[in-house]
Amino acid sequence: MSFISDFLENFGINMPSFVQIIEFIGTFAFAISGIRLASAKKFDWFGAYVVGVATAVGGGTFRDMMLDVTPFWMTDSIYLICSGLALLCVIMFSKYLIRLHNTFFIFDTIGLALFTVVGMQKTLDCGYPLWVAIIMGTMTGAAGGVIRDVFINEIPLIFRKEIYAMACVIGGIAFGICMWLGVEQVITHTVCGMCVFLARVLAVKYHICLPILKGES
Amino acid sequence: MSFISDFLENFGINMPSFVQIIEFIGTFAFAISGIRLASAKKFDWFGAYVVGVATAVGGGTFRDMMLDVTPFWMTDSIYLICSGLALLCVIMFSKYLIRLHNTFFIFDTIGLALFTVVGMQKTLDCGYPLWVAIIMGTMTGAAGGVIRDVFINEIPLIFRKEIYAMACVIGGIAFGICMWLGVEQVITHTVCGMCVFLARVLAVKYHICLPILKGES
Amino acid sequence: MSFISDFLENFGINMPSFVQIIEFIGTFAFAISGIRLASAKKFDWFGAYVVGVATAVGGGTFRDMMLDVTPFWMTDSIYLICSGLALLCVIMFSKYLIRLHNTFFIFDTIGLALFTVVGMQKTLDCGYPLWVAIIMGTMTGAAGGVIRDVFINEIPLIFRKEIYAMACVIGGIAFGICMWLGVEQVITHTVCGMCVFLARVLAVKYHICLPILKGES
Repeated sequence: MSFISDFLENFGINMPSFVQIIEFIGTFAFAISGIRLASAKKFDWFGAYVVGVATAVGGGTFRDMMLDVTPFWMTDSIYLICSGLALLCVIMFSKYLIRLHNTFFIFDTIGLALFTVVGMQKTLDCGYPLWVAIIMGTMTGAAGGVIRDVFINEIPLIFRKEIYAMACVIGGIAFGICMWLGVEQVITHTVCGMCVFLARVLAVKYHICLPILKGES
Repeated sequence: MSFISDFLENFGINMPSFVQIIEFIGTFAFAISGIRLASAKKFDWFGAYVVGVATAVGGGTFRDMMLDVTPFWMTDSIYLICSGLALLCVIMFSKYLIRLHNTFFIFDTIGLALFTVVGMQKTLDCGYPLWVAIIMGTMTGAAGGVIRDVFINEIPLIFRKEIYAMACVIGGIAFGICMWLGVEQVITHTVCGMCVFLARVLAVKYHICLPILKGES
Repeated sequence: MSFISDFLENFGINMPSFVQIIEFIGTFAFAISGIRLASAKKFDWFGAYVVGVATAVGGGTFRDMMLDVTPFWMTDSIYLICSGLALLCVIMFSKYLIRLHNTFFIFDTIGLALFTVVGMQKTLDCGYPLWVAIIMGTMTGAAGGVIRDVFINEIPLIFRKEIYAMACVIGGIAFGICMWLGVEQVITHTVCGMCVFLARVLAVKYHICLPILKGES
């Protein structure tokens, strides 16, 4: 990899890092999820794009506003370009996307895992304690979906179905245990990401849900 | 009280101040209101917890983001723990909670009053004029309920029924009059809080509402 | 104009600048649009006022929170007073407002154009690149309407109908071309505003819409 990277740099092309590639895939998958739900509500291209962007960057934006740092997408246009590519894909290949349902589920879950790790590390770097980092990691991963559902005027899906945000919390706890054990950062990140990924995949495979709160009617 | 406080400090326990106790009660009552409404919409435990937290800390979070200070709940975990206790209570005692309706109404109104005072003082401490403080006090008290209603996909209750946010405004005006008269801070706070409390209680008791805006259609 | 301005200053009255007058008109038109939609949902006066304010200042508030500057309406009470006047107008003249539909459309579009210019210039002044400024300009103009529609529990209108936010983007691109050509700032602003205005007016006149994204159903 280092050889290819050096070769490309001769031509002024920076090889994207492994994390950047995963981040791109995650952003793309999140944007696709927003755009597809928007299309079911007959949004126009612009509306669908906004919902896609909000799904992809909304969680991180709220995190950054709370951490009082510049929202991450304002310093690099890749996230908006990536959402634009997602819109193009839905416009051109909408018929074939349904068949790719499982692929998108995997991408979406990889994105969720990475966003959780990124959100947690950024919060810890700002000097906040672990419990704030777990909340911010969960928000980075899951809040975009809440904004998406508010925009399409539905009750947020993650409040009623599926282990989604809880997977982030589980990963966050794993992150904390690794830190407590003094594990190296790169391993901590990997363990956290794997926990989020596995928690979500296993929950969907074995239909594990959180209990529904009994209403008073 | 000072004796108990000194005694407890020997064991490393800080006696919570009077304000902290009221803040805890207010947070609890706000979280309960969010969780109960979420339960009526069949949210799972996690979703209900998020709605409870958002109801309790959402207003103050927006206030702090606008004042450009760190959101208050990020510096003290008590607010999230308190919302967790509220969730536990609803899970375990949901049958009996309906009977406590009046108790929660009182707690909720105490919370509203305290949140208004806290929000106003924090805004004034940041150097803003009174009219900004009144808006921020009202937002601290009432915006959580708006976020709650957006999450459960209902038209915000406070926009259509009851004197709720208006009670905060009345308290805010009383705060301003006290400041103008040069009254001591502790009395100013008490008067403001009492005005919020009384305005809401009297409005509910005598069915006082704001006029409905006539639609055109 | 300078003569009148000097004369008024003798009495401590500052002549509002041309931009301030347009800003006032735009804020008023935006607030009216929020209050009228709130009235159709039977909001009370307070709720309608909040929706009006949110429509008028919501976009700029999110912009300022992302730029990490104090929300603009917290430094000058004119925006809230202006929204209050809009509420008064709707309360008193609601019957006659329907006939003024075209007038409001023009005011609303003038407001949209000005808000876009103001939002873009503020973002550039903060040192951000053009593409961030276009997004922030669009957000300043169009995000208030999204918040309004979330509050009244409808799917945001601008995601489904009309060229609205796209007009801001077109104006933003014109702004960028002027900058690239080295045109003077005042002309750049005028061209940007005119493009927003014309794009929206022509789109409505000739029923130009963005394509609807085909749903998968």
